[in-house]
Amino acid sequence: MDEAARGRLEAFSDGVFAIAATLLILEIRVPDVEGADLGDQLLHLWPSYLAYATSFLTIGIIWINHHACVSCLKRADRTLLFINVVFLMVISFIPFPTRLVAEHLQHQGERDAVYAYDLTLLGMAVMFNIFWRYARHHRRLIADTVPQSRVDAISRAFDPGPLLYVGVLLVAIVSPLTSVALTFVLAAFYVPAQALFERGQPWQTSGGGDL
Amino acid sequence: MDEAARGRLEAFSDGVFAIAATLLILEIRVPDVEGADLGDQLLHLWPSYLAYATSFLTIGIIWINHHACVSCLKRADRTLLFINVVFLMVISFIPFPTRLVAEHLQHQGERDAVYAYDLTLLGMAVMFNIFWRYARHHRRLIADTVPQSRVDAISRAFDPGPLLYVGVLLVAIVSPLTSVALTFVLAAFYVPAQALFERGQPWQTSGGGDL
Amino acid sequence: MDEAARGRLEAFSDGVFAIAATLLILEIRVPDVEGADLGDQLLHLWPSYLAYATSFLTIGIIWINHHACVSCLKRADRTLLFINVVFLMVISFIPFPTRLVAEHLQHQGERDAVYAYDLTLLGMAVMFNIFWRYARHHRRLIADTVPQSRVDAISRAFDPGPLLYVGVLLVAIVSPLTSVALTFVLAAFYVPAQALFERGQPWQTSGGGDL
Amino acid sequence: MDEAARGRLEAFSDGVFAIAATLLILEIRVPDVEGADLGDQLLHLWPSYLAYATSFLTIGIIWINHHACVSCLKRADRTLLFINVVFLMVISFIPFPTRLVAEHLQHQGERDAVYAYDLTLLGMAVMFNIFWRYARHHRRLIADTVPQSRVDAISRAFDPGPLLYVGVLLVAIVSPLTSVALTFVLAAFYVPAQALFERGQPWQTSGGGDL
Repeated sequence: MDEAARGRLEAFSDGVFAIAATLLILEIRVPDVEGADLGDQLLHLWPSYLAYATSFLTIGIIWINHHACVSCLKRADRTLLFINVVFLMVISFIPFPTRLVAEHLQHQGERDAVYAYDLTLLGMAVMFNIFWRYARHHRRLIADTVPQSRVDAISRAFDPGPLLYVGVLLVAIVSPLTSVALTFVLAAFYVPAQALFERGQPWQTSGGGDL
Repeated sequence: MDEAARGRLEAFSDGVFAIAATLLILEIRVPDVEGADLGDQLLHLWPSYLAYATSFLTIGIIWINHHACVSCLKRADRTLLFINVVFLMVISFIPFPTRLVAEHLQHQGERDAVYAYDLTLLGMAVMFNIFWRYARHHRRLIADTVPQSRVDAISRAFDPGPLLYVGVLLVAIVSPLTSVALTFVLAAFYVPAQALFERGQPWQTSGGGDL
Repeated sequence: MDEAARGRLEAFSDGVFAIAATLLILEIRVPDVEGADLGDQLLHLWPSYLAYATSFLTIGIIWINHHACVSCLKRADRTLLFINVVFLMVISFIPFPTRLVAEHLQHQGERDAVYAYDLTLLGMAVMFNIFWRYARHHRRLIADTVPQSRVDAISRAFDPGPLLYVGVLLVAIVSPLTSVALTFVLAAFYVPAQALFERGQPWQTSGGGDL
Repeated sequence: MDEAARGRLEAFSDGVFAIAATLLILEIRVPDVEGADLGDQLLHLWPSYLAYATSFLTIGIIWINHHACVSCLKRADRTLLFINVVFLMVISFIPFPTRLVAEHLQHQGERDAVYAYDLTLLGMAVMFNIFWRYARHHRRLIADTVPQSRVDAISRAFDPGPLLYVGVLLVAIVSPLTSVALTFVLAAFYVPAQALFERGQPWQTSGGGDL
C-alpha cells in the first residue's frame, strides 16, 4: 500500500482532528437564566472559553506532532492503522470531558470533571507514544531518506508527553483550575517551544525539511 | 474519470467515516441528576463508553477494510459510486442506534435498542459486501496490477461479515449486553486478526503492498 | 491557480457534502415519552427515517453530479468559487428542513415543513444550474480535452433539475407525504438512471472516462 | 517538510472551514411554541437565516482568501502551522456567537450578542493578518515563482480586513441589526469585489494564475 495507505491515514486522521476540534464549540452553551443580562452571562462563561481554547490548542498541537511523525514514514501497515484508530478514538473523545470542565469548573464537581479531562489527555499522550514507538522500532516504517538524528529528535520531543500529563493530573488533586490552566500553558507555550527547539537538529538545517 | 473519481470516492468516504466516528461523542450525555456526585455519574455511564468504543472501532475497522478494497480498484463507475453512497448512508446512521444503546443498555428498552444497533451494523456489512462483490465481479473494476490471489484473500476476509452480525443479533435475543460486548470484541480483536491473517498472501510479501 | 484551486474547491466541497450528509442523523430524535415501548417508538419514527434517507441520497447524488461537472473543468476562477460557496450554503442548510419534515410529517404543520424542504432542494438545484452554466458558458472553464458532446450530455442530464423540484413542490400542495416520497424516488431511482443514460455518449465509451 | 506540510495545512484548514460552516445550521432551532403555526414560526426566524448566511459566506470568503495566500507559499514552517491553529480556533468559534445573534437579534440582549459576534470576526481578521504578515515577511515562506506584485496585491486586498470589522463593531453601538446586515453585505459584495479587483494585477493576467 505504501503511499496510498499513508495518504489515507493522513486524510482520515486530519478529518478526525479537524472535526473533534470543531465540535468543541457545540459544548459551549449559555445557561438559560431568565432575566439575566446576556453580557454578564457571556463574561461568566470564561471557564468554557478556557476549556475550549485548551482543548483546541491541544488537538492542534498534537495534529502538528502527528504530522511530524507521519512525514517520516515510508509506509503504514495494518497494525499502525489500528493503533491510529485507537489514538483517534481518544482524540475524538476529548469534546466530552471538555464539556464537563466547561460546565463544572468553578462549580460543584469540578475535581471529577478535571480528572476526567486530564485522564483523557493522558490517554491521548500514551496512544501517541505507542504510535511513534511502533513506527520507529528498528526503523520499521521509517523512510530511508530520514536520518536517525531526525527520528531521535522527534522521540526526545514527544516521549515526555505522558509524564507531563501525569503531572497535570497530580496538580488537579490540589487545584483543578490550576491543572486546566497548566494544560493550556502547555499547549500554548511549552509544547510549541519544545518542538521549535528541535529546529537546531542537523537534518533540519541542511535542507527544506524543517518540520 | 478513473483516478479522479477514485480519489473523490476516497475523499467523500473518508469524510463520512471520520465525521460519523467523531459525532459519536455528541451522543454521550451526563444525565441531569440534581445533587448527584459527578464522579459516580461518570462511572455509571459505562454503557455509554462501551457503545462509543464499539461504534468507533467498528467504523475504524470498516474504514481500513474499505481502504483495502478501494486500493485494488483501477477506477470507479457511477454504479459503484451509488452503492458507496448507500453504504455511507448506513455508516452515517450508526450514531443514532449508538445513542439508543448508550441510553438504554441496563435500562428499560435495552433489547430493542440493541436490535436497532445490530440491524444497523448488519446493514453496513451487507452494503460493504455488495460494494466489493460489484467491484470484483469479473474483475470489472480491479486494477490489472492486482493479482487474483489478493482479490480472493480480501473476499475470504470480508465475505463472512454479514453472518457474524447475524450471530451478534441472535445473541441479543438472549442477552443484549453480551451482544454489544461481542460486537466490541469483534471490532477490537477478531476483525483485525482476520485482516492480519491476510498478510501471508503472496502479493503481500512480494512487495510493499501490505495492506 | 488552476489545478490547485480546483483541488481545494473539491476538498472544501467534499467536506461540506460529507458533513451535511452526516449531520442529518443528529436530527433524528426519539421523543421523550414516559413508559412507551422503545420498539414501538422506533417504528413510529418512520417519517424521520424517510427524511434522513431522502436527504442523504439527494446530497449523495448531487455530490456525484458535482463531481461530474468539476472533472470537466480545467481550472476554477474566483467567480466560480463564490458561486460554489453559495451552492454549498444551500447544501449545508438541508439538515434544517430535514428536521422539520422528520418532526412534522404526519403531524401538525406538515405542509409548511415540506414546503420549506422542497424550497431548499429547489434552491440547491438552481444554484447547481448556475454553477454549471457559468462554467460551461463559451467553454469558459472547460478543459480542452473534454469534448463538447460530453458537456452537452451533462447539461441535458442536469438542466431539468429545477423543474423537477418545482414539480415536487406543487405536489406538496395536494399531499406533503407524496411530495417527500417522490423526492426519495427521484434521488434513489430517477436521477441515477438519468445519469446512467449519459453513459452512451461517445466520450464515455471511447476511454476510461465514464463519469 | 515543504510540500507535505503545506498539503496537510490545507487539508486540516479545509476541514475546519468546512465543518465550522456546516455546523452553523445546528444553531438554527424552531422555538417550541405550543399551537403556533409552523409557517409563521419559520418566517419569524429570519434573524437566524441572516446570521446563518452571514457566517457561512464570511467563512467561505475567508476560505477563498486563505487559499489565495497558501497558494503563494513554497512551504510551511512550525510557526506558521501554530499561527494557523490559532486562526482556525477563531474560525471554529464562529458558530457560538452566530447562535447568540440568531437567538437574540430583535430580542433582549441583541447588542451584547452582536458585540460578541463582531469581536469574533475581528479576531478572525486579525489572526488572518498575522498569518499573512508572517508568511510574507522578507518573503520568508513565499515561493520564488510568485512575483512580489502578486504578494503586494494580496496584502492590499486583505490588510484592511481588521479595520472593516472595527467599523462593523462601532456600528453595533448604534444599531445591532445594521451591524449584522453590514457584515452580510461585506461578505456577499464588498469582499468578493475587492478580491476581483485584484485581477488586474500583472501576474494574474500573464498566466493561468487567476486566483
